[in-house]
Amino acid sequence: MHVLVTGAGGMIGRKLLEVLASGGTLAGREVTRMTLSDLVAPQPPEFTAMPVTSLAGDFARPGAAEDLVAHEPDVIFHLAAVVSGEAETDFEKGYRVNLDGTRALFEAIRAVGGGYRPRVVFASSLAVFGAPLPDPIPDTHHRTPLTSYGTQKAIGELLLNDYTRRGFLDGVGLRLPTLVVRPGKPNRAASGFFSGIIREPLNGEEAVLPVADDVMHWMASPRAAVGYLMHAASLDTAALGDDRNLTMPGLAVTVAEEIETLARIAGPTRTELIRREHDAAIARIVAGWPRRFTAARAEALGFRPDPDFETLVRAYMVDAGIGASVPPASGRSG
Amino acid sequence: MHVLVTGAGGMIGRKLLEVLASGGTLAGREVTRMTLSDLVAPQPPEFTAMPVTSLAGDFARPGAAEDLVAHEPDVIFHLAAVVSGEAETDFEKGYRVNLDGTRALFEAIRAVGGGYRPRVVFASSLAVFGAPLPDPIPDTHHRTPLTSYGTQKAIGELLLNDYTRRGFLDGVGLRLPTLVVRPGKPNRAASGFFSGIIREPLNGEEAVLPVADDVMHWMASPRAAVGYLMHAASLDTAALGDDRNLTMPGLAVTVAEEIETLARIAGPTRTELIRREHDAAIARIVAGWPRRFTAARAEALGFRPDPDFETLVRAYMVDAGIGASVPPASGRSG
Repeated sequence: MHVLVTGAGGMIGRKLLEVLASGGTLAGREVTRMTLSDLVAPQPPEFTAMPVTSLAGDFARPGAAEDLVAHEPDVIFHLAAVVSGEAETDFEKGYRVNLDGTRALFEAIRAVGGGYRPRVVFASSLAVFGAPLPDPIPDTHHRTPLTSYGTQKAIGELLLNDYTRRGFLDGVGLRLPTLVVRPGKPNRAASGFFSGIIREPLNGEEAVLPVADDVMHWMASPRAAVGYLMHAASLDTAALGDDRNLTMPGLAVTVAEEIETLARIAGPTRTELIRREHDAAIARIVAGWPRRFTAARAEALGFRPDPDFETLVRAYMVDAGIGASVPPASGRSG
Repeated sequence: MHVLVTGAGGMIGRKLLEVLASGGTLAGREVTRMTLSDLVAPQPPEFTAMPVTSLAGDFARPGAAEDLVAHEPDVIFHLAAVVSGEAETDFEKGYRVNLDGTRALFEAIRAVGGGYRPRVVFASSLAVFGAPLPDPIPDTHHRTPLTSYGTQKAIGELLLNDYTRRGFLDGVGLRLPTLVVRPGKPNRAASGFFSGIIREPLNGEEAVLPVADDVMHWMASPRAAVGYLMHAASLDTAALGDDRNLTMPGLAVTVAEEIETLARIAGPTRTELIRREHDAAIARIVAGWPRRFTAARAEALGFRPDPDFETLVRAYMVDAGIGASVPPASGRSG
C-alpha cells in the first residue's frame, strides 16, 4: 500500500508517520511506500526500510497535485492547510491554499481515471460551525463558519462529499478537537494556553492563564487524533452514507479540571506555576468558540476518544519522555 | 442606481427586468442604468429610456466578471447558472460556471476596492438540502446536497457569507421554490408537470401527469419570485446576521390540490385533459425532493409568499393574457 501525506511536516503529520512506520500496516495491508509533502521536505520516519519520497514546496502551486498522485497512492491523508489566523489576515493565501489547493488535489485524483479511487482522509475543522450554537452541538448542526478558514474547510467538506458521490474518490472528513497536550514550545495560537498550563508546569516552568477557570473546551490528545486518522483510512465507508464529514469525539474539559488533574498527577505545588493574567482579547475569542459536541456518528463508526483527561495527560508525559517522575518545580523545594 | 443582472435572458430575469423598468425604482431609488448579461445578448426591457448595456457571452470566462462590474453597479442580481441536470451530466462545466463563475464575480467586486460594496442578490437553490430530510425542513437544516448543482450552490452560499463578513459585498442568498405556473412550452425538467397540468389544460391542450395525486411540492409563482428578488435588494441586511442565505416562503401544494383548483377556475372538463401516465423514473426523482419548508427567517424579514394556489393560477392567467375567460378545451364542446 502506497500512502500520501500532505502537511507531513506538521505536528500531527509527524506523529502519523511514526505510527505508520512502526506499525507497518494500514487497513490491514502492509505499507510499502510513502510520499510526503510539506513546504520544507518532511523528514522520513526513523527505522523504516520502505521507499519514502519527500517533496518540498507549496502543494497548492500549479502542477503540484498532479505530482503528488502520479504514482496513485491508495490512501491520501490531506493535512496541509494555511492555519486559521493566517487565513484571516491573508485572504488570498487562505483561499489559494485551503480551497484551490484542496480542489486541485481532488481534480488531480479525478484526472487519473481508469478506476483509480483512493481513500482520502481530509482534515476538516470544528471552525465549520459558527455562533449561534446549541450546547452540545450535534453532528447535524448547519455549517455557518465565522472565519475564512472555517469557510474554506466547509467548502472542502462539500467537495469531498460530491467527489465521493461521483465516484472519483472515497472520502472521509474529520473535524478534529483542539489537540492537548501539544508538545514543544508555547505558540501564539489563542488556544495555546490549554496545553501550556499542563506542559509548562510539568517542565518546571511558568505558564500564563489568560481566561477564567470555568472556560470549557473540546479536546483530544495527539495520540487520539492519529488514531482517528488511522481509523478513517481503514473503516468501511458504506456505513457513512452521503455525508462523509464527521465531528470527532473529544473531552469537554474546563480549565479548573485541567488544573485539578495537574495537581493530582504532579502535586499541588505545580499548579502554583500557573500565573493568572486575564487577557480580554483572548477571553473574547475563546468565548466565541464552541465548547462541547456530540459526536454520535463518529462513535457509532468506532472512533474512540481519550478515556479521560488524566489518561490524556499521562500519555503526553510518556510521549514527551517525562515518565512517571516529573522534574521539580524550578525555584521551589520538591 | 445602476443594476446588473446576470442570466438576464432567463424566464425570471426577463420578468425582473419588466418590473424594474415599469416601476423605475429599487430600494427607494431611481434605476438609472442597467447592465444585462447572458449567453445571448438579453433584450432590454420595453418602454425604458435609461441606458441599457447588454453583454453576450459566458459570464464565467476569464475577464468577463471584471467587465460586468467595471461601472460599479449598486445592486447585482446574480441569476446565471448551469441548471441542475446539466451540472450533473457535465461535471466540469457545472463547476466552471456555478462555482468558478460565481467566485470570479465576487473576486471582481473585491478587486474594485475603494469602499465599493454592492448589494449582491444570489439565486441559490433548495438543492442545497439533501435526504434524509425532516418534514417540514427548517432554515437551519444542515446543507448536505446530493447533486453537483446543489454542492455548487451551497459553496456559493458559503462564499457569499464570507465575502459579506469581510466587507467586500453585502450579500443576500435566496433559495427559491419551484416556479409554477411557468409560462411557455413544456420543457424536459423533471418538475415540468407541476406547471404543465395547469398550463396545458388552460390552453385547451393535453398534459401528462407522471406521478400520483398525493405528491406534494414547494411552489411559488414567478411574480412572487420577482418580489423576493426585489425585496432582497431593498431590505436592511443588518437584521440578517451572519448567515445571509434564506429559504424563501412557498406553498406546499399536492397534485390533487392543483387539479381541484383547475376545476374550480376553469371547469371540471379541463381536468379531463390531464392524462395520467405513470413514469417510474420521474416518480423516483420527485420522491427524493423536499416537499415542505418552514421559511421563518424570510417571513420575519418581510418576504411574502403567494396567498394561495388559486391566486397563483389566476395571476398566471392574467400575465399570460388568458384573462377571465379560458379558451374551450380542444375537441370538446364548451
